[in-house]
Amino acid sequence: MAALGAAGASRVLAQPAVAASRGGALEPLPEFRRLVAANRILANEGVVDAFGHVSVRDPRNPERFVLARSRSPALVELADLMEFSLDGTPIDARGRTPYGERMIHGAVYEARPDVLAVVHHHAYGVLPFTITGVPLRPVIHTGSVIGAEVPVWDIRTRFGDTDMLVRTIEQGRDLAATLGRNTCLLMRGHGAVAVGASVQSVVLTAIYLQINANVELQALALGNPEGLSAEEIDKSAAAQFSPRALDRAWEYFCQRAGVDPV
Amino acid sequence: MAALGAAGASRVLAQPAVAASRGGALEPLPEFRRLVAANRILANEGVVDAFGHVSVRDPRNPERFVLARSRSPALVELADLMEFSLDGTPIDARGRTPYGERMIHGAVYEARPDVLAVVHHHAYGVLPFTITGVPLRPVIHTGSVIGAEVPVWDIRTRFGDTDMLVRTIEQGRDLAATLGRNTCLLMRGHGAVAVGASVQSVVLTAIYLQINANVELQALALGNPEGLSAEEIDKSAAAQFSPRALDRAWEYFCQRAGVDPV
Amino acid sequence: MAALGAAGASRVLAQPAVAASRGGALEPLPEFRRLVAANRILANEGVVDAFGHVSVRDPRNPERFVLARSRSPALVELADLMEFSLDGTPIDARGRTPYGERMIHGAVYEARPDVLAVVHHHAYGVLPFTITGVPLRPVIHTGSVIGAEVPVWDIRTRFGDTDMLVRTIEQGRDLAATLGRNTCLLMRGHGAVAVGASVQSVVLTAIYLQINANVELQALALGNPEGLSAEEIDKSAAAQFSPRALDRAWEYFCQRAGVDPV
Amino acid sequence: MAALGAAGASRVLAQPAVAASRGGALEPLPEFRRLVAANRILANEGVVDAFGHVSVRDPRNPERFVLARSRSPALVELADLMEFSLDGTPIDARGRTPYGERMIHGAVYEARPDVLAVVHHHAYGVLPFTITGVPLRPVIHTGSVIGAEVPVWDIRTRFGDTDMLVRTIEQGRDLAATLGRNTCLLMRGHGAVAVGASVQSVVLTAIYLQINANVELQALALGNPEGLSAEEIDKSAAAQFSPRALDRAWEYFCQRAGVDPV
Repeated sequence: MAALGAAGASRVLAQPAVAASRGGALEPLPEFRRLVAANRILANEGVVDAFGHVSVRDPRNPERFVLARSRSPALVELADLMEFSLDGTPIDARGRTPYGERMIHGAVYEARPDVLAVVHHHAYGVLPFTITGVPLRPVIHTGSVIGAEVPVWDIRTRFGDTDMLVRTIEQGRDLAATLGRNTCLLMRGHGAVAVGASVQSVVLTAIYLQINANVELQALALGNPEGLSAEEIDKSAAAQFSPRALDRAWEYFCQRAGVDPV
Repeated sequence: MAALGAAGASRVLAQPAVAASRGGALEPLPEFRRLVAANRILANEGVVDAFGHVSVRDPRNPERFVLARSRSPALVELADLMEFSLDGTPIDARGRTPYGERMIHGAVYEARPDVLAVVHHHAYGVLPFTITGVPLRPVIHTGSVIGAEVPVWDIRTRFGDTDMLVRTIEQGRDLAATLGRNTCLLMRGHGAVAVGASVQSVVLTAIYLQINANVELQALALGNPEGLSAEEIDKSAAAQFSPRALDRAWEYFCQRAGVDPV
Repeated sequence: MAALGAAGASRVLAQPAVAASRGGALEPLPEFRRLVAANRILANEGVVDAFGHVSVRDPRNPERFVLARSRSPALVELADLMEFSLDGTPIDARGRTPYGERMIHGAVYEARPDVLAVVHHHAYGVLPFTITGVPLRPVIHTGSVIGAEVPVWDIRTRFGDTDMLVRTIEQGRDLAATLGRNTCLLMRGHGAVAVGASVQSVVLTAIYLQINANVELQALALGNPEGLSAEEIDKSAAAQFSPRALDRAWEYFCQRAGVDPV
Repeated sequence: MAALGAAGASRVLAQPAVAASRGGALEPLPEFRRLVAANRILANEGVVDAFGHVSVRDPRNPERFVLARSRSPALVELADLMEFSLDGTPIDARGRTPYGERMIHGAVYEARPDVLAVVHHHAYGVLPFTITGVPLRPVIHTGSVIGAEVPVWDIRTRFGDTDMLVRTIEQGRDLAATLGRNTCLLMRGHGAVAVGASVQSVVLTAIYLQINANVELQALALGNPEGLSAEEIDKSAAAQFSPRALDRAWEYFCQRAGVDPV
């Protein structure tokens, strides 16, 4: 899955599955500190606002994932991180309120062993593509990270008129089925999901999903934009997810968000 | 009125109607400190600029409302707050100049006992919808807070060529009649009004009114956007106004505006 | 000329025409300190960038005007102010380089005794209206300050292919003739000129010229926007230039730009 | 080549070609300190983001150029600068990773002795013009610096499906051939190249390339924009590259980016 970027599924098993919390707080593993940084970065780059969230698969136990308590990403700190089983059950909630839509994360981790990090967001530039039937596709090389196809999922198709939120694991699994082997998915009238092989790569994907959407929208106003070819997308995504590009971008995003690169 | 968010009309009567000012300044009730925060937030989020204002119904006396003196929201402090009767008469002006358009607030509070907070603004992204006949309607779930229908009021219809400002209680009442039971109203060539069941909920509504407008504008450039269904709007608004979502958003907006959450 | 805002032509003669510079620096009159503030405000609000400038008629001598030396407005300080006669000749240059386009200011002051302040800028949102023949007209009440008609001047019509800059007093006078009795003028492929009865009012006009342009552009994408009527423009401009509105806006713009209101 | 701005090819030979690095670091020549400033400026003005780069021809040896190691421009410091021969070979890498696309710079310096500075970037506002066949051309006088013609290069034409990056000197030379005698070039689905006779002038060009693109895009939504004539472009570019304009802009861009003007 070159399209997911650096670090593969083998990494999931790299550390033994020890207890996730001790004395109430998660160990400050690099993955968790990167997750805090990712929260701040996605807020700073305008991918998330008051709402949206980012998670990482627990490097010690691939059957669990880590996600902040119900708090805006701009404010998330290490102490806000909670651990969940893949069906969305908190391991040690200690009175903290989880995000209502944590099922998105759990269901994607369940369906995609290659996925180690997930972002759900409502980036404004992406939203027009969720309600108009116009395909969001890579038109710039930095946009290749979103993959050749970005399916649109509509919660109404299977679940009727809802509050639009993914509240059950069944809804999450339906979303994950539409995601399939792709890197990004749009949710009708709601937002998007991006998945990756690391926190750094999913952050890159989520950011350039919106940039690509903005460019595509403007290009559609000018005429019929020429997208990248399938082979260009594959090759370019591999280049964008290479350590040279990914490390450069991560250092940059961290500096802009005022966090130390981890 | 789930569409108005947390806290109901009963709250209006929760405290006895004591004197509104003592020694010249309003008591620093949480509602008034939240009103100051709301001023800063709306400025910081680009909903108001030099102009626009936000008010709260006096929790001690539902026949009065509190609004800043004539000052840009970005600069409003507790000492700037003035109290008014519902016809817009200042209770204790002490030489301070009130906003010329305070009648908007008074007339809405008069017509809508369920309304505890009102915003009037000229958010740029909303303005195109006030002059083109294109309906502003929820196309994203965070936009559900604006309600299914957003009527457009034109001051010229009843009052002819004016300076466009709502200067009399009669003009305010005409506006309130067009607002009806809705949560938002557009004013032709001028701006918008949003109402809510609390300061926090009306701030959320005013912010997402503009975000929804921007998304709808871009979507209209791509094609014919699919809006939320009536049932989705009701259910989604209830979710967005739930304490989980509203508290999260309020903490976020306060942090961005540099004010302490109250 | 209500459309020009507060303070009338009588103000020009309010102070005796004393020597403009003593020991090399202009007296720190309120008008000159306001001019420095205006430079910072226009930069901060995105009306000017590296280029553009703002001047004031000398309150001590209506046959002279004051303008910064050739420096970006964001950086202008009191010591950068230079005085010019209406034909653009520096009174006491002391080696400082003046703006190449100071003739715009001189020619306008010459033709319009009611004008006490002038801005020339290239605000990006205004530029599309200078090259497409689509009229820029007030579509929102805060935009009424630009006046009912905004003529477009093309330097090529009289002067052929140039470097597009207004370099001679003859070019300036041609521009001023096209401006006529209006408050704003567009320059084809170049920018705009706004005039006012005070520094504060011309700043308001220049800022809302761009805001109105942005709204009109978006509204044109939606349909055929309804503009303000001629009477609404006159009445609304008077309201926007009233002390209540103008002082509020000036305090706000000063605070955003980090300068003390003068 | 007036279109390239201040300082001509003679400057290349102004200093003897001494050894480029001593004890591991480049001498802090003004050109190199300006190059660091240019990195910060281009990031601050939104021309580059995580990606993109700017180089200068070595004033001591015209067969070499100086470019940062693989790092985002916002973060570049003097110690990050590396020297390269025109075929892209590092002179003294000392373990530092160079940009993958340094060949763009080398090939342009090789083909264009008049060029002393090069920017490669992915400015979002420029990208729609790389994929739609709509010509990017000067429509405002500040945009005259981009030159009358901006060709579009497509890597696929000669090199088939690639990762879109200019990785070989042959690809760079093909790009340089399409650039020809022009000042700017667009790369299909990728970005742009701007060249200049000094760091300051190429920074001005890169910034106004995007501004001109944004204005042209908006103007195309309004109608058929009137561009500058060929003679206007030549004359206006000469004016914009004059010391009066260029120094003013450089001081402004430096101040905004928080760097000392050099």
